[in-house]
Amino acid sequence: MHRSAPFGLLLVLCILSGIDSGKVLVFPLDGSHWVNMKVLIEELHSRGHNVTVLRASNSWYIKEESPLYNSITIPNTGGFDEEFFGLLIGRLLKIRREGHSIWSRLQLDYEIIMMFKSMHEDMMQMMERMLEDKEIIKSIQDVQYDVVLADPAAGGGAILAYKLNIPLVFNVRWTIQGEGHFAIAPSPLSYVPVPGAELTDKMSFLQRVKNVMTYLFTWFQLAVIADPIFTSFCLKHFGPSVNYFSLFQDADIWLMRNDFTFEFPRPTMPNIVYMGGFQCKPAKPLPADLEEFVQSSGNHGVIIMSLGTLIAQLPQDVTEDIAAAFAQLPQKVIWRYTGPRPVTLGNNTLLVDWLPQNDLLGHPQITVFVAHGGTNGVQEAIYHGVPILGVPLVFDQPDNLFRMEAKGTAKIVDIATLDRTVFLEALKEVLHNPSYKENMQRLSKLHHDQPMKPLDRAVFWIEFVMRNRGAPHLRTQSFRMSWIEYHTIDVILTLMATLFIFAFLFLYVIRYLFRV
Amino acid sequence: MHRSAPFGLLLVLCILSGIDSGKVLVFPLDGSHWVNMKVLIEELHSRGHNVTVLRASNSWYIKEESPLYNSITIPNTGGFDEEFFGLLIGRLLKIRREGHSIWSRLQLDYEIIMMFKSMHEDMMQMMERMLEDKEIIKSIQDVQYDVVLADPAAGGGAILAYKLNIPLVFNVRWTIQGEGHFAIAPSPLSYVPVPGAELTDKMSFLQRVKNVMTYLFTWFQLAVIADPIFTSFCLKHFGPSVNYFSLFQDADIWLMRNDFTFEFPRPTMPNIVYMGGFQCKPAKPLPADLEEFVQSSGNHGVIIMSLGTLIAQLPQDVTEDIAAAFAQLPQKVIWRYTGPRPVTLGNNTLLVDWLPQNDLLGHPQITVFVAHGGTNGVQEAIYHGVPILGVPLVFDQPDNLFRMEAKGTAKIVDIATLDRTVFLEALKEVLHNPSYKENMQRLSKLHHDQPMKPLDRAVFWIEFVMRNRGAPHLRTQSFRMSWIEYHTIDVILTLMATLFIFAFLFLYVIRYLFRV
Repeated sequence: MHRSAPFGLLLVLCILSGIDSGKVLVFPLDGSHWVNMKVLIEELHSRGHNVTVLRASNSWYIKEESPLYNSITIPNTGGFDEEFFGLLIGRLLKIRREGHSIWSRLQLDYEIIMMFKSMHEDMMQMMERMLEDKEIIKSIQDVQYDVVLADPAAGGGAILAYKLNIPLVFNVRWTIQGEGHFAIAPSPLSYVPVPGAELTDKMSFLQRVKNVMTYLFTWFQLAVIADPIFTSFCLKHFGPSVNYFSLFQDADIWLMRNDFTFEFPRPTMPNIVYMGGFQCKPAKPLPADLEEFVQSSGNHGVIIMSLGTLIAQLPQDVTEDIAAAFAQLPQKVIWRYTGPRPVTLGNNTLLVDWLPQNDLLGHPQITVFVAHGGTNGVQEAIYHGVPILGVPLVFDQPDNLFRMEAKGTAKIVDIATLDRTVFLEALKEVLHNPSYKENMQRLSKLHHDQPMKPLDRAVFWIEFVMRNRGAPHLRTQSFRMSWIEYHTIDVILTLMATLFIFAFLFLYVIRYLFRV
Repeated sequence: MHRSAPFGLLLVLCILSGIDSGKVLVFPLDGSHWVNMKVLIEELHSRGHNVTVLRASNSWYIKEESPLYNSITIPNTGGFDEEFFGLLIGRLLKIRREGHSIWSRLQLDYEIIMMFKSMHEDMMQMMERMLEDKEIIKSIQDVQYDVVLADPAAGGGAILAYKLNIPLVFNVRWTIQGEGHFAIAPSPLSYVPVPGAELTDKMSFLQRVKNVMTYLFTWFQLAVIADPIFTSFCLKHFGPSVNYFSLFQDADIWLMRNDFTFEFPRPTMPNIVYMGGFQCKPAKPLPADLEEFVQSSGNHGVIIMSLGTLIAQLPQDVTEDIAAAFAQLPQKVIWRYTGPRPVTLGNNTLLVDWLPQNDLLGHPQITVFVAHGGTNGVQEAIYHGVPILGVPLVFDQPDNLFRMEAKGTAKIVDIATLDRTVFLEALKEVLHNPSYKENMQRLSKLHHDQPMKPLDRAVFWIEFVMRNRGAPHLRTQSFRMSWIEYHTIDVILTLMATLFIFAFLFLYVIRYLFRV
């Protein structure tokens, strides 16, 4: 009982046929998130839609000119640029390397809080400049876009969709309020681990305490950082009746960049559409020289290592330790690395500036993926069924890899304690204990066993919103209630008070009757 | 931007190809629920699966012999049979006709409670007979079924799946605990209307009080009726460690017989698959005589009336009033009716024993559907975009029709106040106010705008469970927690106590220092 190969192809043909061209306004987030958004843009473009991308003038990834889209450039002079980000990553890595003291935890939190503050302020300044530029706004209004496609980790998309009264679709894993689900789906803290807490859906009492504390801390960060910035922006531009968080919870469809091979089972909402792994594709043949190198590994197989879009280089001592560990293995290694050549580098290790990660992961000779745990890389590993040796560095990476470790598909090495022995032992464990590969291939099978390819599903729902001018029938507006109403506290207190009064009157009457 | 017609066909071809034959054990509920289950059985049969149906010896709908399935007949002598049900419906109709006093409400509740009691006891007696019959159990075990497909409004399916250790798929709208979602999905009573409360997802304070009261009443009924019956059965056969409600909440996939054109938006779970309208099909041509009658209506169009599987006849005075109202209209009427011919019947009204409901609803000349509000009929009306004049009688019918009325697609006539004037005015309203048709056609368009046909989706997930021996990655086991754990009450109290102790110590130290 297996689905046949031409299923996906036929489905694409089905969906392609009979859909006219729509106008899509894309509000992306720069950096690694743009890599994801571009996959959707490519697909929308190939299906005949006209895509326009809003970009900041100092964007470091989003090009002004592309065959895939038109762009509108908003002048931006804010400090949240590539250089800022590079320096931040350097500081974060340094702190992570120092260990897990409370002091380093506080330093990390401080850096992240300041990053979000800078990012949100920068975004709101850009939005301010945009809304005040009557010409840009009019030019956008004149086009009459069918949908705004936005990444809600940046705050601008929801504001623009509201201003222009256009339906809104999110390409989301993170929002300005944290993980996407927490903004609109009930998330009981008893079995929904808060991202960052490194917990599963089965928690002991103490783990549930940790989960609640992590949630409170996230909520506190939000209240201190994001809330004032967005609230004052909305107050200034839309008046006191418009609440920013409602604007963004109001999105028609949430295209969620994960699924339940990655996530633990948890409540969801009718307008959440899972598209985890939508960026993955079957492997194409490797370039001839790379294929030759891979084949030269014989029966031992090949290890690949890459630390994602943002981090091409680790501290030099870590690099030397990793190179030395690799050198002791009979496997071949392909390592995406751009720093100075490590002294300890073995003959079995090939350093490259860039590697065709998807094609390599899909190559049958690849045995282990040494990864930092970015969502994209983890999902490509699931797609191709390759077990992971994780070296989590910053942001959501520790939590992503924790999920994989909990599912038996990855082993984690802590960069604070990483040396050549630790790294080598961990690598050998993933290479020689077959359970990692078996678990990952089981997960991969489940991921592929879907009625529809995630990318096709995502585009179907973007087109649905265009066809139907939104998706209000899938969207609850319960977030407009107060906290007390939402949790039925007013009703419960009223019923209890009523019960109490009746009981009191009853007893009073009884006592009176007895006296008489 | 519309999907093309061959999409569904191609999809069926895609799914058909490459799936081997599986073995499905079906545990249905008799009556109108069997009509639904049979649609799934037909589809599974046509895709090459072997289906076996468990039936009671005194079943009134489920035939022993069929080209679609093999059957296993369990001896049953319980009183919950066709005659019991016919008498019950008669009593319920009589009470409904008498009006809406608290007394009649209590009578209705009593009848329903006694019905469930009888139904559950009957089912558990049958299960007892089955589990004690070593021969039947062994013959079922020998077949090594891939999946149990059960209707959880009857309690037997989950017990059988547990006993035989076979994955479990539910075809569900109701469970022994009430509406399906309430058993596994978070259902905040602030915006999720409890079925029977006749409320929407937007409630005033008093409506929320009503919602909570209805919920408590439903819960009380469950605790008094279903709980003792199932708990004592499980205790006897599986020991004290097995909780019946966990067994049934543990189902791999919940194929839900509704969707969000019918339901209001509400939280859901990853293993809930919506298949509302899965039984609907494009209309086939009508028999020649019926087509001729329909065409004779000219521009006025045709009204059809049917009260579903169970109720072929209303009290005679109601029937006369309805017939008299029909007689005053220029439209033609096709009425499924098996009682004595009403004296007031007009020439424009055709009485039939049975009508091809789906083919009529899909006929362009049909203008209004006079219906009792069973789920099947309402979903066929949504599928074909025909507005409803509702005459709700018993069970979930008032609530189903309330949903349609709230969405502007139906008008409800109360059988307690129904006379020829009331009925005629209501019918004219649906005929002449275009909003009913417009709203229903909008709903119909949304219902059809899905990436996959509901029946294909349902069968995909049944086959998924067969391929993967269940779907544990989509299923939370949070229901195994205690109520206090689930709601994080223990953690909240602990944190508050800790905070209190620290505050106390702090103040104590301060006071001490001041004194010194």
